[in-house]
Order: sequence, then C-alpha cells, then structure tokens
Amino acid sequence: MNISILAVGTELLMGKTVNTNATYLSEEINALGHNVLYHLTVGDNPGRLKTTLEFLLEISDMVITTGGLGPTQDDLTKETIARVLHKKMSRNQQAYKMMVDRFKGFNVEMTDNNVKQADIPEDSIPMYNQKGTAPGFITSYNEKFVAALPGPPMEMKHMYQRSLKLFLEEHSDSIILSEYIHLFGIGESSAEAMIDDLVRGQSNPTIAMYAKPGQVSIRVTAKSDTMEEAYGLIQGSLDQLVERLDKYIVGFGEDNLIDTTLGDIIKSNRSISVAESCTGGLLAAELTARPGASKYFDRGFITYSNDAKHQMLQVPYETIDNFGAVSEECCGAMLEGLYGQSFSDICVTITGIAGPGGGSEDKPVGTVYIGVLIDHYMKIHRFNFTGDRPTVQKRAMLNALNMVRQGIKACNNM
Amino acid sequence: MNISILAVGTELLMGKTVNTNATYLSEEINALGHNVLYHLTVGDNPGRLKTTLEFLLEISDMVITTGGLGPTQDDLTKETIARVLHKKMSRNQQAYKMMVDRFKGFNVEMTDNNVKQADIPEDSIPMYNQKGTAPGFITSYNEKFVAALPGPPMEMKHMYQRSLKLFLEEHSDSIILSEYIHLFGIGESSAEAMIDDLVRGQSNPTIAMYAKPGQVSIRVTAKSDTMEEAYGLIQGSLDQLVERLDKYIVGFGEDNLIDTTLGDIIKSNRSISVAESCTGGLLAAELTARPGASKYFDRGFITYSNDAKHQMLQVPYETIDNFGAVSEECCGAMLEGLYGQSFSDICVTITGIAGPGGGSEDKPVGTVYIGVLIDHYMKIHRFNFTGDRPTVQKRAMLNALNMVRQGIKACNNM
Repeated sequence: MNISILAVGTELLMGKTVNTNATYLSEEINALGHNVLYHLTVGDNPGRLKTTLEFLLEISDMVITTGGLGPTQDDLTKETIARVLHKKMSRNQQAYKMMVDRFKGFNVEMTDNNVKQADIPEDSIPMYNQKGTAPGFITSYNEKFVAALPGPPMEMKHMYQRSLKLFLEEHSDSIILSEYIHLFGIGESSAEAMIDDLVRGQSNPTIAMYAKPGQVSIRVTAKSDTMEEAYGLIQGSLDQLVERLDKYIVGFGEDNLIDTTLGDIIKSNRSISVAESCTGGLLAAELTARPGASKYFDRGFITYSNDAKHQMLQVPYETIDNFGAVSEECCGAMLEGLYGQSFSDICVTITGIAGPGGGSEDKPVGTVYIGVLIDHYMKIHRFNFTGDRPTVQKRAMLNALNMVRQGIKACNNM
Repeated sequence: MNISILAVGTELLMGKTVNTNATYLSEEINALGHNVLYHLTVGDNPGRLKTTLEFLLEISDMVITTGGLGPTQDDLTKETIARVLHKKMSRNQQAYKMMVDRFKGFNVEMTDNNVKQADIPEDSIPMYNQKGTAPGFITSYNEKFVAALPGPPMEMKHMYQRSLKLFLEEHSDSIILSEYIHLFGIGESSAEAMIDDLVRGQSNPTIAMYAKPGQVSIRVTAKSDTMEEAYGLIQGSLDQLVERLDKYIVGFGEDNLIDTTLGDIIKSNRSISVAESCTGGLLAAELTARPGASKYFDRGFITYSNDAKHQMLQVPYETIDNFGAVSEECCGAMLEGLYGQSFSDICVTITGIAGPGGGSEDKPVGTVYIGVLIDHYMKIHRFNFTGDRPTVQKRAMLNALNMVRQGIKACNNM
C-alpha cells in the first residue's frame, strides 16, 4: 500500500518537539513492504486537519494519524476523520470495556470526559492503549484506510506494535528483511569507496550506509515473496561485504561496538576497571549503563587533577613533570597504578586534552592517550581526535572500548 | 506570513533520518512573528514534489523547501519550483561567482556538473552556501514566496542564519520575545495545576510547559510591535510565575539545573569530588562535560563493588553487612571516606539500585541514597525513583546536582 503519515499537534509546528513518530513509523512500514508517500504535520485546527486529510486520502491508500486524541484536544482527530469519511461517531463497546479495565487498574473513577474517549467513528476497529487512556482505531471507507494513533511516542509505539502492525502485515504481500553490519575505525567516505560498486550495482538487496560520530553502519535490505529467498539474497551481499571490510567489522544486527565489547568481556569471564582523566567518567558510565554490570565492572578512578593521578594511582610527580599528564609515560603509570589498586583482569586508562583549552603545538586539543592491559597484553596508543569537547570525549570512550575488544581477541589467540 | 516547510528526501520517508530541519526552522520562524502552517515531507520524485508544492502554495504565503539541491538529486527541487512558478531556469551570475569562490577555496577544479548548480529560477535572489556547494535562493510569483535551502542540517542552518532570516525579519511586523523558567523537584501535572489559571487566562503572553524526565520547563512568549512592550508583557507573567513556583525554580533562559549548579559551584569557589555506585560515573561525566571543569572538579571514585567501597573509601565491611550497600549508613560512610580521600569542599556520594535486578521488598529497584557534604552542612536523602535503569541513573544524577545546589544555598545563608 501507499501510506501517508499525518501528525496532529501545534507543538510540532512551534518547533518545540521533533516528529520522531513519523521516523519510527516509516522505518516499520517500509520494513513490511509498504511505501511511505508523505509525512505531513498540521496544528490543532479542525479546518486545516480536514483539508490535509482529504488531500492525503486522495493520493494514498492509507493515512495513519498520530496525536490529537487526548481529552484536552477535544477529540480533534477522531471527529475530523469521521467527518471526512462521512461516518457518525458512536460509543464503541469494546473501546469502552478497554477504558473501564484501564481505570480499574489505576484505581481511579472514570469521569464523563473519560467515557467520551470510547466514542470513535462507526464501524471502526478499536486499538487498545496500553500506556495511556485514549483508544486508537482503524477504519475504512471506499477502499481507503485510516488509522488513528496517540501522539506520545511511548503510547504510539505500544499501540503500533500491538495492533496496527498486525493489520499492515496482513495487507502486505512481500517480505522485507534487513541486516546491519557495524564498522569502527574507518570513515564513511573510505568505507563507501571500498564497496561503491556493490552499493550502486544492485537494487535487491539494497545496500545503504549510515554514519554517527566514530561509527559507520551498513544496512542490507532484501524484498521477496518468500523468507527463504530474502534470506538468501541478504546472505550473498553480507558475504561480499564481510570479505572487503572484515578488519573494521565490530558487530552485526543489534550489536554495535559497545554491545560487542561488553559481550566479549562477559564471554572472556574477565573483570574490568578504568582510570579516566579527560573523559571524566564517560567510559565507566557506558560500562555500567546496561543491566548486569556488576558481573564484570568492579571500580573506576576519575583522576582529573595531577594530585588525583598521584594520590589515587601513585603516578610519580616526576613522570608528570617530565612528560606531562598527557603522555605515553603518564598513561603507562596510570595503567600500572590501576592494576595495583584493582587487580582487575582488564585495566583501561585514558588521559588527554578534550578542549577547548589546554592544547599546545606538540599536543593540540584532541590528543588522547589510551592504555589497555589484559594479562600479558599491553597497548598504549596516541590518538589525535578532531571535534569539539563532547566529540573528543565520545571518540576517546569508543576507541577505548575498541582497544579492549582488540585486546581480548589478541589474548584469545595467544 | 503563513509559512509551510517542505522537506525533500526519500531517506526521511524510509525512516532513516529524523526531520530536525523542520523543527529548527519552525522555532526560528515563530520567533520572528510568522506562523508555521504545515510541515510536509516528500521523496525524490518530481511528480509528487510538484503536487505538494502546488497544494502548499495555495494555502500558504510562503513555502520553504529543504533538500533536493545536490547534483546527485538532479536539481530536483529547483527545477520543480521553476515549473510550478512558471519560470525558466537561468545561469545566475552571482551564484556562479559564489561557486567559483567556493571551489577556489577548496583548490578543486569545477566540473560542468558543478557549474550547473549556478542555474536557478529566473529573477531569484541567490543564497550563499558557506558549508557546501549548492546555492539556495528566494523567489516570488503572484505575491507568494518560495525559498530553497539545502538538506544537510549544517548547510541549512548557516544559509538560514546568513540569508533567509534577514528576509523573514524584513517581512515581519511584530516582535516575538520568549523567556524560559526551568523547574526541578515537581512533576508536570503538579506544576500545571499550580499555574493553570495563568496558562488558560491569557493569550499574550502565552505560557506553555515542556517536560523531560526529571525536569519541567515553562516558556513565556509575548508578541508586540515594540521590544519594550514585549519585554513588559513577559516580565509581568514572570513575576506571577516566580511568586507561585519559587522553590522549584532552578534556572532561567539557557541555564537549566546542570548549568545553574555548575555556575553555583564556580561562584562559591569550591572544589567538588564524587563517589558513585549505581550511577557508575554518570555524575562525574556530567561535571566534566563542560569546558573549564578542572577549575572545580578534582577526582571521582566509582565504587561499584563492595570491595571497591571498602578499599577505595574505607567503608567498613560491617556497615555493608549490617545495613546493606544501599543504605543511609553506607552512603554516610562513603561520604566520610570521600572527604578523607579528597579534601574537596563539596563531596557527593550515590548508592542505590538502578535495576532491573537487585530489588527487594524493603528496597525496591529505584531506591537510591544520595549524600552531600559541604563545610558543616551534611544531608543524606533516600529517593524512590521509578523508571527503567537509564531513567533511574539519570534521575539520581540530576537529584545529586540539585542537592549540591541546595547545599551551596544553605551554606551561603549560614
């Protein structure tokens, strides 16, 4: 089907909220083999909503609306949909029962205003709102479909996954399958140059590239009538990509550099400790952001000042005086001190100049030393990152994880 | 003017890119006193682009397009604009000169493909692209305006600020002024209830509320013919809001809780150290995320395991055995140990259960103790946060900052 997404909400037009709903739904809809024709956003204005809904229904097989379902918005969206589709509003018994259940769960009495939320266009299929009160619905007229979802992203996503997705799957006759490859240590344009012929040479599967600071991902998407064929198409492309990009690949599917590295640490049954200067706790925060961190993470030292480096990690003042706090020597001394303090299987230290101040000719802003110690494996690298303070800090954190990943690999091969 | 924003780009409809351009432009356009009527997104398809451009021009005074200007997109947007406005394309000498300058700067020779980018609809005002090669333009027909901006956000923003903004300022006859108030320690609905009459009672200035996890912001916006009047209108509302919400206000304008607290630390000329368990470095990372952190931040201890709490902060094992690592007693012992280790003016400790595992009936997931020590001021609070692991960690970090802010205030009043 050709589907358009219509967002209702003045706050979007005021520039105060980003329309992430349209992005989320588009990715989901494309993955089911449907096309997204238009995104349109309109304010809380019945006249303009009617105009745009009519415009979109003329050129689309289906319109999905988000927002304008709440009681304070006077049920703007559902009444306009009813009007455009020449339908009456009617109390939907299923929707009413959903609301009663919901309010019982809250232990709150339903007001008339709440009960009114069970009114939807006649002959519609109601959709349960697991995370809020306003029900959604799917309705049709003259072989066109309209679905109404709530605006808050969490309510919208739950209702989509629970209800609308099944409807869209039933109305699709092709299967779309995607796989992701995540790269690290290579820029977008260099990666593109290495696989340019593959990207341009074929239309099924398609190969597309996405870049975030320090990370590049490749998506392979196949469209087919059968799951087997789609899978085969993807596998063929994956083999070619892996052959060319092997040394930069840090993960597949949901597993990016961070997940892969944490998985490697857990699999290797090792504990990890960190000592950070210029990243100020960013690496530790990333290592403890996921459930179960206590299995591998023991402690961290944020040695921001020179005194902290000396008192917490026994870095000799002479080392700092002779070579500077941002030096291979200081990074090595931090590593030694960290190992002595923590006895962790994996020790990681970071010292550098995140900027904007503190740079010199020899060591400009972005100069960062990262050290990794695992068993008898030890590496200290100097990096020269570009970017503002948060970018330098993030790149340092990601490269530290990548060095841990490489270190575990090297130890496994020893 | 009534303005619509038209984004051109298949990647937006694939759900791979969020349309942040529309959000950015909307905030800017509203601030200049214009109205945003619609956001519309269309793929790289000349027929559909023509349909939507005609639709939007019928109901808007001006349409601003973003994207579809690059050479690989076959100049889709500018040729379609020319067609819809019944204009011919012509080589614009000013645009050509801009391109020549640009390529001279790159030290790269211009190809025919590049030169073609200087072709824009006849009688248009070209806009210089400081960050890319494709020029933009502003053109008019039958008292309607169309402006074409590039798609990449950095190019778009520079061109907007440098060129289009001036045009919009000249075509606006009102002044719009906004001020923000940031609250902490109060939920959105409670704050709303306290100022409901002010929000509903007036249309100029308007008062609107925005919520993020743990933080609520209020925007006051006045529209007027003179700056003085707009300022007066805002000040009147601000006074009322401050009177009612005083104890929850943590900042005005650009300064939210984090900026205000860092500002207070710097103003009070104190150093700060932290010891974190369940937040795993998040507080330290926030304290060191801004330039100049070395002025006040000295060191941090991430004492994730019980051994780390004992070895790094001398928390007695009996305290942990008798009361648990998540307890007022342990939080206090961490505070004492941190002070002994750091001699910082401000000491902050956090210990809690971020989840999803580790909760009990007495201390469910979300139980977090936060301690703050400043001079003779000491406070330990127990919090019962709701939400998933990242939300609990973030709320703990924000509340720790808020306790620091309150502590400095209390010390100043001693």
